[in-house]
Amino acid sequence: MSIRVGIYGYGNLGRGVECALKQNPDMELAAVFTRRNPATVTVLTEGVKVYHTDEAKNMADEIDVMILCGGSATDLPVQTPEVGKYFNTVNSFDTHAKIPEHFQAVDAAAKEGGKVSLISVGWDPGMFSLNRLYAEAILPEGEAYTFWGKGVSQGHSDAIRRVEGVKDGKQYTIPKEEALEAVRSGNNPALTTREKHLRECFVVPEEGADLQKIEETIKTMPNYFADYDTIVHFISEEELKRDHSEIPHGGFVIRSGKSGWEKEHTHIIEYSLKLDSNPEFTSAVLVAYARAAYRMNQEGQSGCRTVFDVAPSYLSAKSAEELRSHLL
Amino acid sequence: MSIRVGIYGYGNLGRGVECALKQNPDMELAAVFTRRNPATVTVLTEGVKVYHTDEAKNMADEIDVMILCGGSATDLPVQTPEVGKYFNTVNSFDTHAKIPEHFQAVDAAAKEGGKVSLISVGWDPGMFSLNRLYAEAILPEGEAYTFWGKGVSQGHSDAIRRVEGVKDGKQYTIPKEEALEAVRSGNNPALTTREKHLRECFVVPEEGADLQKIEETIKTMPNYFADYDTIVHFISEEELKRDHSEIPHGGFVIRSGKSGWEKEHTHIIEYSLKLDSNPEFTSAVLVAYARAAYRMNQEGQSGCRTVFDVAPSYLSAKSAEELRSHLL
Repeated sequence: MSIRVGIYGYGNLGRGVECALKQNPDMELAAVFTRRNPATVTVLTEGVKVYHTDEAKNMADEIDVMILCGGSATDLPVQTPEVGKYFNTVNSFDTHAKIPEHFQAVDAAAKEGGKVSLISVGWDPGMFSLNRLYAEAILPEGEAYTFWGKGVSQGHSDAIRRVEGVKDGKQYTIPKEEALEAVRSGNNPALTTREKHLRECFVVPEEGADLQKIEETIKTMPNYFADYDTIVHFISEEELKRDHSEIPHGGFVIRSGKSGWEKEHTHIIEYSLKLDSNPEFTSAVLVAYARAAYRMNQEGQSGCRTVFDVAPSYLSAKSAEELRSHLL
Repeated sequence: MSIRVGIYGYGNLGRGVECALKQNPDMELAAVFTRRNPATVTVLTEGVKVYHTDEAKNMADEIDVMILCGGSATDLPVQTPEVGKYFNTVNSFDTHAKIPEHFQAVDAAAKEGGKVSLISVGWDPGMFSLNRLYAEAILPEGEAYTFWGKGVSQGHSDAIRRVEGVKDGKQYTIPKEEALEAVRSGNNPALTTREKHLRECFVVPEEGADLQKIEETIKTMPNYFADYDTIVHFISEEELKRDHSEIPHGGFVIRSGKSGWEKEHTHIIEYSLKLDSNPEFTSAVLVAYARAAYRMNQEGQSGCRTVFDVAPSYLSAKSAEELRSHLL
């Protein structure tokens, strides 16, 4: 019998989960839940029904794990404890500073319901976090570096679009090659914000807008751009649509550490992602961890967990014997 | 109270474990065990005693986890079940084809003794295996590639030294840059053995040896070199000592996979290691997993486990709260 998965929230991430489920024959999409009028939502998978989120609670017997596809700002902090009382859940909560608080709220709800909720699943937090942990545990004396990009930053793109005279825009975060090379050299360089990343903006101005003023406003914007080298390109709406409609992302987690009695040897551990679609990759990670949440609950576990608490074998559809024979 | 670790076998790996323990304040080296006459073995750590391996069984109360530092060919298959009856153990058993059989033997012994034995810990098997598993679970429709090097292959160096007229030699396995780039392009290329790796040999000939014959013999050696592009350099004994006395290694695990309803997006996951010292890095991994073996046993687990079965948090000296706050 396959694992019955519910999608809770049907935007980019929800659609990504739907696509990922198609690649995992031991799982099936059981239902999609939306806050919109279900009649207005059409899903890709044939035969799958769309329900209003209010109906979820009554379907605890039909869903083995619910993948929460809302946003971290307002959706997930409320939805996860609510839904986590009735279902095993997985979410991609990515407000790093609020993870401890979110963990507490979700843990209480999941324990009350006897379910497992996995939070902060994706690539950062998620796969990048795992790689930070593994590398630090192996090389405790060393330095860790995380670089993001090349990829689209939603927050920075939104910031551009709020500038007066800007019709539309996209921002790419780009790790600086010199910084990457300095880290890979094993010299544990101290890098400033400006030295690590570059910000490249593609801006569609409104007709007759003051381009120089737009550029100046962007480049000096505190928190978002002031601490970075920022490049601003003005392009047409057509160019933006043609060349910048995808949502690529990625990045690097690099740790450089020492070994030997006198720390005479240096080691570099590097993990990197190059993603054509940020939401689809995040969804693919969510689906693998949905399998884990279900299995951990089947074993009698309950409460909130993160990627740190999940043994890798739980993610794979393969048996322990197969894994040992073919992947070890 | 710190975790008391025993080192079982004191060669390159055992010394590496000793060095790694110095970097982990929650663990201490409790004793070193050797098959040699203990009086002839001097360890680096002050105040630590050396015992004969025969004495180990009587010291079950003094050691929390034993790190087995013997070789995979003959030592570990015998030692691990023997020692695993009395101690939590970690080993670096790396004969991939014999892992299932080794698992069975160790599992029975560890269950009998109520202990946890972690086998095949290191970087391949070990960290590379983990990365193969994580990447495959996230991107089930894709291809995985493992490249080794640049690094010294002990087996191939031994093969060179067995050639008539060769006094000494070292062999480096080198991944081909074109192959790495082809994989990173996301095109899932089919690569032959020759296309993936290059073999570079540094050979010290005996005086008056027939160099052409040595080169020919190496390049046509079945299994070891015949299927590869092989470069042979003749150097002096001094040059070998000066330039080739270290044991560097490393490699790459790359998975390229698809997402999207029509598989329209490509993702590349890459993990790489660049190691100054192969045995010291392996030792560092063994020590992190020794912490895990001890903790899992403290929780009441027993039996044989691999890296696939160990939740990442068990490897870190930090608490779950610290990990969530600082590494997630």
